[in-house]
Amino acid sequence: MSNALTIEAPEGLPFIDSTREFDAPVPAVFRAHADPDLVRRWMGPRGYTMDVGAWDFRSGGSWSFVHRNPAGEEFRFRGTFHTVRQDRFAVQTFEYEGVPDVVSIESLTFEPLPAGPGGGSRTRLRIHAVYPSVEARDGMVASGMEGGMREGYEQLEELLRDQADG
Amino acid sequence: MSNALTIEAPEGLPFIDSTREFDAPVPAVFRAHADPDLVRRWMGPRGYTMDVGAWDFRSGGSWSFVHRNPAGEEFRFRGTFHTVRQDRFAVQTFEYEGVPDVVSIESLTFEPLPAGPGGGSRTRLRIHAVYPSVEARDGMVASGMEGGMREGYEQLEELLRDQADG
Repeated sequence: MSNALTIEAPEGLPFIDSTREFDAPVPAVFRAHADPDLVRRWMGPRGYTMDVGAWDFRSGGSWSFVHRNPAGEEFRFRGTFHTVRQDRFAVQTFEYEGVPDVVSIESLTFEPLPAGPGGGSRTRLRIHAVYPSVEARDGMVASGMEGGMREGYEQLEELLRDQADG
Repeated sequence: MSNALTIEAPEGLPFIDSTREFDAPVPAVFRAHADPDLVRRWMGPRGYTMDVGAWDFRSGGSWSFVHRNPAGEEFRFRGTFHTVRQDRFAVQTFEYEGVPDVVSIESLTFEPLPAGPGGGSRTRLRIHAVYPSVEARDGMVASGMEGGMREGYEQLEELLRDQADG
């Protein structure tokens, strides 16, 4: 059974608000965002490979990666980490180089949740993404980002389960 | 005679759009944003001093400074430079540490204009600033940022005139 991803794109405002819960404690979910060797194992759609160019996950750092789909097409992304607060909060910029100069900014909040029926710690991840225009936000929604996010978080859940078992 | 600063805060959207022209060529206006020894001579309200902690004006760099008013009060700011494109364009994040975790993202466009009556090259600077909520945008407008920007750009105009004369 998988936790659901919810995505809201409020009418008339350039925001995308996403929420996803995980059956794992906050430090494990946070570490999977901080460590590039873990990030490349889950981020993006199933069947894609991810080459990380930079992943300096600290306030003032920067990041870049290339996603490659099964047909070999490449999709380049880059940004900066404005704030990184261990096990709590991060603010990052985000640009898909195929749509140059349209840069969004995302706040990620990692919330501890009460233990589930199985007794383990749980985490809620909330992401508030802000786009330079409502049109840019609508373009991101139309690009199929929801499917990529959903599959990526499923892969993250599998990774967290492997870590808990392993 | 001074060029006017125009600031628009559109109803219901989390944006501030600012425009200012300068009687100086784009490379001079751009350099005054790139070089911290120039930046600290103009940015902010009159009578403030500015200590620059970091000013790494390149794609992926970061920045920080402290403004000190005549009464000795300190105001700390920091951010990252997502994109810097020489003499054309920059995207940066912006945070006033007195309102922590409310981070905006600003796109700066440097446009060359036809020569004015005096014959010299002119520049239009446009800034599109995007806030994480309409309330945060309204708070920034209410903070008196317009006066600080206006005085800062007057000081920049004086600096550019000194450079042209000097």
